[in-house]
Amino acid sequence: MDIASRVYAHKWKIDPIVRSLIDTDFYKLLMCQSIFRNSPDANVTFSLINRTRSIRLAELVDEGELREQLDHIRGLSLTRGESTYLRGNTFYGKRQMFRPDFMEWFEALRLPPYHLEKRDGQYELTFEGKWPEVMLWEIPALAVLMELRSRAVMKGMGKFELQVLYARAMTKLWSKVERLRQIDGLKLADFGTRRRHSFLWQDWCVQAMMEGLGPKFTGTSNCLIAMRRDIEAIGTNAHELPMVQAALADTDADLLQAPYRVLADWHEEHEGNLRIILPDTYGTEGFLRRAPDWLAGWTGIRIDSGDPARGAETAIAWWKARGEDPTRKLVIFSDGLDVEKMEELQAQFSGRVRVSFGWGTLMTNDFRGLVPGDALAPFSLVCKAVSVNGRPTVKLSDNPNKAMGPADEVARYKRVFGVGDQAAMDVVV
Amino acid sequence: MDIASRVYAHKWKIDPIVRSLIDTDFYKLLMCQSIFRNSPDANVTFSLINRTRSIRLAELVDEGELREQLDHIRGLSLTRGESTYLRGNTFYGKRQMFRPDFMEWFEALRLPPYHLEKRDGQYELTFEGKWPEVMLWEIPALAVLMELRSRAVMKGMGKFELQVLYARAMTKLWSKVERLRQIDGLKLADFGTRRRHSFLWQDWCVQAMMEGLGPKFTGTSNCLIAMRRDIEAIGTNAHELPMVQAALADTDADLLQAPYRVLADWHEEHEGNLRIILPDTYGTEGFLRRAPDWLAGWTGIRIDSGDPARGAETAIAWWKARGEDPTRKLVIFSDGLDVEKMEELQAQFSGRVRVSFGWGTLMTNDFRGLVPGDALAPFSLVCKAVSVNGRPTVKLSDNPNKAMGPADEVARYKRVFGVGDQAAMDVVV
Repeated sequence: MDIASRVYAHKWKIDPIVRSLIDTDFYKLLMCQSIFRNSPDANVTFSLINRTRSIRLAELVDEGELREQLDHIRGLSLTRGESTYLRGNTFYGKRQMFRPDFMEWFEALRLPPYHLEKRDGQYELTFEGKWPEVMLWEIPALAVLMELRSRAVMKGMGKFELQVLYARAMTKLWSKVERLRQIDGLKLADFGTRRRHSFLWQDWCVQAMMEGLGPKFTGTSNCLIAMRRDIEAIGTNAHELPMVQAALADTDADLLQAPYRVLADWHEEHEGNLRIILPDTYGTEGFLRRAPDWLAGWTGIRIDSGDPARGAETAIAWWKARGEDPTRKLVIFSDGLDVEKMEELQAQFSGRVRVSFGWGTLMTNDFRGLVPGDALAPFSLVCKAVSVNGRPTVKLSDNPNKAMGPADEVARYKRVFGVGDQAAMDVVV
Repeated sequence: MDIASRVYAHKWKIDPIVRSLIDTDFYKLLMCQSIFRNSPDANVTFSLINRTRSIRLAELVDEGELREQLDHIRGLSLTRGESTYLRGNTFYGKRQMFRPDFMEWFEALRLPPYHLEKRDGQYELTFEGKWPEVMLWEIPALAVLMELRSRAVMKGMGKFELQVLYARAMTKLWSKVERLRQIDGLKLADFGTRRRHSFLWQDWCVQAMMEGLGPKFTGTSNCLIAMRRDIEAIGTNAHELPMVQAALADTDADLLQAPYRVLADWHEEHEGNLRIILPDTYGTEGFLRRAPDWLAGWTGIRIDSGDPARGAETAIAWWKARGEDPTRKLVIFSDGLDVEKMEELQAQFSGRVRVSFGWGTLMTNDFRGLVPGDALAPFSLVCKAVSVNGRPTVKLSDNPNKAMGPADEVARYKRVFGVGDQAAMDVVV
């Protein structure tokens, strides 16, 4: 290492976890642009939720360090190179995916303030403000907390003990790569930014997958890594769009239509592989049953909760009922995947639909079993839009363990969307 | 990396495996000094012997590359820093272990020519010349062939595949470290230079043991690594001393005394922990039975062939018979050790003698099971003094699978030394 690089590295008073505004999921940027056009003034609150209560984050992670990391993120702005990339790169086959007015706004953006308190061994971390601004906190906030937790656990480890820890993690990931490359026709992307062990580890995993899986690895949801490694940035849309629009609905009839209004906007903006339905926000079966016909013409569906095989079968039946050919449709599985589940799903659905996987936490954070007390095992941390213009948001999902919102509102949504009993499934990550 | 380092690294036309004359076992230097004084003009031939015939080295390793590596070694001479270290460092508690006349000779030394031919898929590599010069070829020749074989196997591997290979090897070594550190009173040194996977890997292993075992790790036989890592250089003497002296004996009576003459010279030169008997060259039991009483006063014994527990029991009984207290004696086990065997031996002999281990190939080259076809598994390569002044050398050992020499001479030695039936044991490494 030359002296200048070394001095430069020492100048940082902290070792920043998030060093770029595009170290985030690509779909956040697509959604941000959509929100920037359609709902720029909605006042939204995002909140961190640790579903794994047994991990007492506020006892593990120092508040001062957390604040330093969050403050560092507030100081970030889009660099010239990042802006050039977003403006000039071809995403999903399209040039100028990001419109000039959006890019100008994004170039000037700094993330808004955060609010941090400790309660009952957990951090209450919230972000309130204009939707297109606060929504960009989700991924960096999660990444910071995940990585600070990793750092806290690794603090006392020796140099070689640490090297061996990573050696073990590499060995583990590579064994998965060796199994995955046996799968004929596999298409898999990295969806693991939000709950990664660390940035450097995610970057290593992506490069290992590029070498180990070749064209079976289709890209990463992480925009910064996609840029640096010159691979595809992957992602479309997420639950926050219907959740916020639903909360804004004034009547039950309006509420029932909210998810489709969101997709009608999306339909106008995007085509091809960006037209992916995320049907589970208020129950997949009712959503598809009531869906307008133009939605059946979309390219595919993303299965993000519930039993994934059942979700895919439901979609196939629905396409057939609407006169569509399922073999031309894309099914993206993205919920809590690991190798065995992907092998099963590929075997069950290959040839019947175009299968694709978004592999998340168990790609970028499978440190299970690597340290005493399993202190580096991933856990279920999310950061969600919890209210908009003073009204609470609700998510039902196809798994009641993933539902959120005040009890009375959840009951109302279940009534409006006709959601009955659901099978509860463990949320691993 | 700065530009100058990079350009410097590129200037090498090859990537040299052995870059220093002291990248060798410390005992070679101690023996070399002894030979330099006692037998400087004996004409000795060393020869490479691959006991694992199934590994066809001449097909795996390119002859041009092998010659380049050997030629590079012929160009090496002691650097100023190395000389300062050898002259000034305290070895085994003694300053000026190496005498000025020896150091002057060593500073001027270049290794003599080698002779290389291919036969039957193997390399015939021999070194002929004055004993103190040719004997220094042993370790670098072995290290070069072992590492060229590793390189040949790894040639087609991708960058991340390679990283994972080393991750797996690290994981494996560290699991051993975690078991070893459970052993109360463990004393263990690295004896793995000659059959290491590579120089960098040995250096990594040594550092990992320093951190992982703390004071239970007592040092390394590798003089260069001992210097660089500031730990003890470990080693005393080896079979080549009695083998060459035995071959020089003119009568059977003279032959029978040869091993004791060697140790009488050693007794004069060294004291304390350097007075370690290596009894198995022509059979441990007879050697001890006939040994002069002053040998029973030596500090310890090294068990390098045969059943190690039996060897240690034989030594204990012998010490008792000679009125010595075994609990004050050192027993160094150094033959084909791995963790389980060390656990067993420590349990059996702790408290009865001072136990110590010289851990070799399965520390610095346990790549078993890490690549398809086990193509990186260590194998049994040695480089031995095969003749002196035109007479063949003989080794019997406590394991007939380790014996060497022409059949008629082996028969004569067995008769002279009274060696009967021996239990054959597999030679793993």
